[in-house]
Amino acid sequence: MLEELKEQVCRANLELVEHGLVIFTWGNVSGIDRSKGLVVIKPSGVSYDGMKPDDMVVLDLDGNMVEGKYKPSSDTATHLVLYKNFKNIGGIVHTHSEWATTWAQAGRSIPAVGTTHADYFYGEIPCTRKMTDEEIKGAYELETGNVIVECFKNLNPDYVPGVLVNNHAPFSWGTDAHNAVHNAVVLEEVAKMTFRSLHLNPNTEMSQTLLDKHFLRKHGKDAYYGQ
Amino acid sequence: MLEELKEQVCRANLELVEHGLVIFTWGNVSGIDRSKGLVVIKPSGVSYDGMKPDDMVVLDLDGNMVEGKYKPSSDTATHLVLYKNFKNIGGIVHTHSEWATTWAQAGRSIPAVGTTHADYFYGEIPCTRKMTDEEIKGAYELETGNVIVECFKNLNPDYVPGVLVNNHAPFSWGTDAHNAVHNAVVLEEVAKMTFRSLHLNPNTEMSQTLLDKHFLRKHGKDAYYGQ
Amino acid sequence: MLEELKEQVCRANLELVEHGLVIFTWGNVSGIDRSKGLVVIKPSGVSYDGMKPDDMVVLDLDGNMVEGKYKPSSDTATHLVLYKNFKNIGGIVHTHSEWATTWAQAGRSIPAVGTTHADYFYGEIPCTRKMTDEEIKGAYELETGNVIVECFKNLNPDYVPGVLVNNHAPFSWGTDAHNAVHNAVVLEEVAKMTFRSLHLNPNTEMSQTLLDKHFLRKHGKDAYYGQ
Amino acid sequence: MLEELKEQVCRANLELVEHGLVIFTWGNVSGIDRSKGLVVIKPSGVSYDGMKPDDMVVLDLDGNMVEGKYKPSSDTATHLVLYKNFKNIGGIVHTHSEWATTWAQAGRSIPAVGTTHADYFYGEIPCTRKMTDEEIKGAYELETGNVIVECFKNLNPDYVPGVLVNNHAPFSWGTDAHNAVHNAVVLEEVAKMTFRSLHLNPNTEMSQTLLDKHFLRKHGKDAYYGQ
Repeated sequence: MLEELKEQVCRANLELVEHGLVIFTWGNVSGIDRSKGLVVIKPSGVSYDGMKPDDMVVLDLDGNMVEGKYKPSSDTATHLVLYKNFKNIGGIVHTHSEWATTWAQAGRSIPAVGTTHADYFYGEIPCTRKMTDEEIKGAYELETGNVIVECFKNLNPDYVPGVLVNNHAPFSWGTDAHNAVHNAVVLEEVAKMTFRSLHLNPNTEMSQTLLDKHFLRKHGKDAYYGQ
Repeated sequence: MLEELKEQVCRANLELVEHGLVIFTWGNVSGIDRSKGLVVIKPSGVSYDGMKPDDMVVLDLDGNMVEGKYKPSSDTATHLVLYKNFKNIGGIVHTHSEWATTWAQAGRSIPAVGTTHADYFYGEIPCTRKMTDEEIKGAYELETGNVIVECFKNLNPDYVPGVLVNNHAPFSWGTDAHNAVHNAVVLEEVAKMTFRSLHLNPNTEMSQTLLDKHFLRKHGKDAYYGQ
Repeated sequence: MLEELKEQVCRANLELVEHGLVIFTWGNVSGIDRSKGLVVIKPSGVSYDGMKPDDMVVLDLDGNMVEGKYKPSSDTATHLVLYKNFKNIGGIVHTHSEWATTWAQAGRSIPAVGTTHADYFYGEIPCTRKMTDEEIKGAYELETGNVIVECFKNLNPDYVPGVLVNNHAPFSWGTDAHNAVHNAVVLEEVAKMTFRSLHLNPNTEMSQTLLDKHFLRKHGKDAYYGQ
Repeated sequence: MLEELKEQVCRANLELVEHGLVIFTWGNVSGIDRSKGLVVIKPSGVSYDGMKPDDMVVLDLDGNMVEGKYKPSSDTATHLVLYKNFKNIGGIVHTHSEWATTWAQAGRSIPAVGTTHADYFYGEIPCTRKMTDEEIKGAYELETGNVIVECFKNLNPDYVPGVLVNNHAPFSWGTDAHNAVHNAVVLEEVAKMTFRSLHLNPNTEMSQTLLDKHFLRKHGKDAYYGQ
């Protein structure tokens, strides 16, 4: 079942390796079929070498296994919370990519200081608050999703397609699994360049007008970038 | 028409990828035929994979489409302003290369502190002033060109073949599309090394005499570098 | 003799190159057969190009040559001290990998500030004290081992599978030679990301609860990561 | 003539590319036949692609062309001064490699803070004083050599096989062209790691005893590293 989605999700997992965002098994991608309410996700702790669509795991939104020969990613509960709360997203990526993780470990949000950022993220890329001991000792992966959702209380996840989990690493998302990987690459690139820009000029900032201009020329009804 | 120039410009666009200056569609190269007053430029938002000379777009200097099946790069208006004002240049490159963009995002010019810089850029590589809200909301890409031209009021673009657009990214140029890419690579390398040199010694500087020596042994009538 | 272990150790040495942890001959891996009390180690100063299992050297735990056509690694005495004192380890890696060596040269331990670290190292990765002149002028390589063992007086080497030798470089270990290389890669990645996180936020830290959660979901009797 | 030396020097020039020490034509290697008093060097401004032994230029120590179809490297005069003053060296390398150039641009010597450095350089890698206007305007490349020799007045070039030319870039040397490239790679690696170590701990240093131990276990009559 869901052969096309399994193919897409498997492909997107391999793209993480091609883009240098993961080593070993440090990442996972999922995709959702909204009409069927089913999620396809990478199996837990399985190597990317020789990974096949058939290795993917199919679950419903409550986490019940529907198909698959492996246990799903240990971060599955986080993915499910995001799919339930961010109604338009079609794919989710989690990595420990080096630059985004650098910011997450520092507990800092990435401010928007350039048009590369503004082309994809409509404002700063937030870092979640630290999780409480209760959340960590409880349903940890589910609570990780909850703390992300809390962080987006006043943010539009379609306009800010990524987040840094404090002391942990990034999650990003998109219209499908492939687009979520694309946003993970952008997040990594922005994390790297802005780290360095702040070193050169700790007070640098960009105007709201320039942020609007770049985000809106690529997104929304007045977009004019591309073909 | 302009088959040779389309071939050159297409080739130069692919060189951006080979030199690691662009990911996805984040860059564009153009070239000009001064005798015909026609510009050849990369199409907007089209992938580098499998890009062919025939995909290039031909425009006149007022931005009228002359040939091509795609919309031209969204930065076309910037290129045209530069060709009109910098009379000797034959090619232009725009990228979001990581190190030059780092400086642009910080709003800082790159000072000349070493002979690598002096071999190609005769003095600091300037960063433009921030654009006004009116410029951003108006003919943004054209105004981006204007702010670059303003920045070069007292500079010779043939001696300083590149610029950082504030909160944005670099533009570079050269005698043709290939040479403009060459200068983009040098700009990136200098941006990287000087970032680090200033970290080691914030007050480092080079003498005007050494700057003269290196620039003029490679450029102008007394050059003696190469064959 | 020990053909399988020689094959494993040779393979693990080559993995150092594949993971970018060594250039030239700057690294060595060993493995131990606990039942026989014999150690297999890379020969000294021999290139990785074309290295074969048969080039490996076999020694007993007192450093007596048992088999081999080459002199063993000049760091052999350090390996032997570790095998004698850390009873559960099956493989040891020494490199001058760039990020871990950066910390070693600075004489600083790597604090645990993120889950990537916590997934593999249960607390900070310590840096040894500086060696005394007597230790350096004496049986230097053996004393290097002793200073590592001293550093782990109150630490469990199975829970912290690596160390930084002050003014020198890292050693890591694991259940076998391959696992020791895996831990060397993680140590390098953590050294890189934490270097940068501290630059962004010198006071960043993670809670003991989060450290426990991540380490213990991958290690020990309650682990639930992987298949 | 000197076919074997031309082969060696050509090969060593290509090794610069393989080790990532040069882009474009930004580097040159030479070698000397001490018995004949002849130097073989890379031609000026010629691309590494397809470079052949036959493209090398042969000169005597006074800079007279003996054989070759191209002009020699514009840095030839610097090489010749070094060969005349450093009597034991057999090969010289000049690059603008990114990390060593970073230090040269900052006008700072690289202190010895770790054993990687001590294995090859017996003490700090010095940065030359700034050149005077007279030196720059005069026989610039020859004076560059003189300022290096002045810098080594109290240093043994066989024990410190490299230097940073202020506001410029590194030169390194060795027993032959290949060994000079090897030392250029080490210089680059040490420049990178020590840049970062000083960021973590600006006051870090290593003991003279440890410096002695590492340098002398690889060099001189009591060496015991390797086969």
